Amino acid sequence: MTQPEQAVVLLSGGLDSATCLAMARADGLDCHALSIDYGQRHRTELEAARRVAASQGVQDHRVVRVDLTAIGGSALTDDAIAVPTEESEGIPVTYVPARNTVFLSLALGFAETLGARLLYVGANAVDYSGYPDCRPAFIDAFRSLAQVATRAGIEGVRWEVRAPLMHMSKAEIIRAGTALDVDYAQTVSCYQADIEGRACGHCDSCRIRREGFAAAGVPDPTPYVNG
Amino acid sequence: MTQPEQAVVLLSGGLDSATCLAMARADGLDCHALSIDYGQRHRTELEAARRVAASQGVQDHRVVRVDLTAIGGSALTDDAIAVPTEESEGIPVTYVPARNTVFLSLALGFAETLGARLLYVGANAVDYSGYPDCRPAFIDAFRSLAQVATRAGIEGVRWEVRAPLMHMSKAEIIRAGTALDVDYAQTVSCYQADIEGRACGHCDSCRIRREGFAAAGVPDPTPYVNG
Repeated sequence: MTQPEQAVVLLSGGLDSATCLAMARADGLDCHALSIDYGQRHRTELEAARRVAASQGVQDHRVVRVDLTAIGGSALTDDAIAVPTEESEGIPVTYVPARNTVFLSLALGFAETLGARLLYVGANAVDYSGYPDCRPAFIDAFRSLAQVATRAGIEGVRWEVRAPLMHMSKAEIIRAGTALDVDYAQTVSCYQADIEGRACGHCDSCRIRREGFAAAGVPDPTPYVNG
Repeated sequence: MTQPEQAVVLLSGGLDSATCLAMARADGLDCHALSIDYGQRHRTELEAARRVAASQGVQDHRVVRVDLTAIGGSALTDDAIAVPTEESEGIPVTYVPARNTVFLSLALGFAETLGARLLYVGANAVDYSGYPDCRPAFIDAFRSLAQVATRAGIEGVRWEVRAPLMHMSKAEIIRAGTALDVDYAQTVSCYQADIEGRACGHCDSCRIRREGFAAAGVPDPTPYVNG
């Protein structure tokens, strides 16, 4: 019996990354989850990531602290910028500069220490809220970078960065995850969830998530602050 | 009078990055220094970075904490791996997986919050100790990534990642820095400097640095543990 191949899966604790992890496991991989504590306001995401990692039975779950508050620039990391409660035009203030670049870089480092060559990220170009680092061009460029940035790449290992949700609608993601027994009640997507992980119901992320459950025809298990 | 353009300069506190900062200032740029506290054993580097930033008169000096010890894999971040005291073959154990990818990602995020489009890094392909992420191919790939990873890139800003030391020998770097009044006594290159910043004199980094001063014909101001 051969060993299953290893993968590093970025796990935020949100709906998308929980689904992405379930898909990586369904691909028969030995999954190492990586969560990033970047000083985000929605701290309950990290608790959600721990619940999801535990319930999906990952090989290993690491949390790396990165103090992005030191560089600021987003409503998610800078107290001086408010999280919007209405749908916004263009790239919203919740965009964290270079977030996925930083996160994938850390996943790359973790993968290299493991001897893994597969990275999974729940980036999505359909409901991506306008974030530049959730597009196929970004994923492709990161893969090219990994190839030249690492000892493994120099030694001939071919890196793969898989973003299986990239072209799925939120409803499709929810249907796929439901078929893989993802417990979405464990996940937190809200940008300003309260300390118990209850969602505000009004931010961009809540709005997209709620519409996704409705479109998928799946009951929404999200705990909302206002019931 | 137009405002000078802004640049983010990665500043480790070592000889190379101190020279790189001096070159960015000589280019007439408004420099924002960024140091990364990544749990490195050679903590005195960060003190050196503060001295260098202060003496060169940067606009701003930020220190971002990233806990790379959570992913391990290098003699510089993992207590289970010893720092070698003899010259090694191939990529040495002091290689930190994806280090420059993580550091440049953070510089990219910082630059985006500032509205800057210039990144400076002291990467060097000549005396680079075999690190994959100190080569021109890596710098080029990171520039391509920055272009698609950021709001600024999408909006048409052209990112530049400058590695002015890339093709210089250590002696050439030391001569250039000396001409720009860099005080190398402030810098720490040693992988295992003591708490006062004194160098061991034996690790790869010390060896390359010492040979550089000798080849440049510049007196070596490095404080060594053994005099």
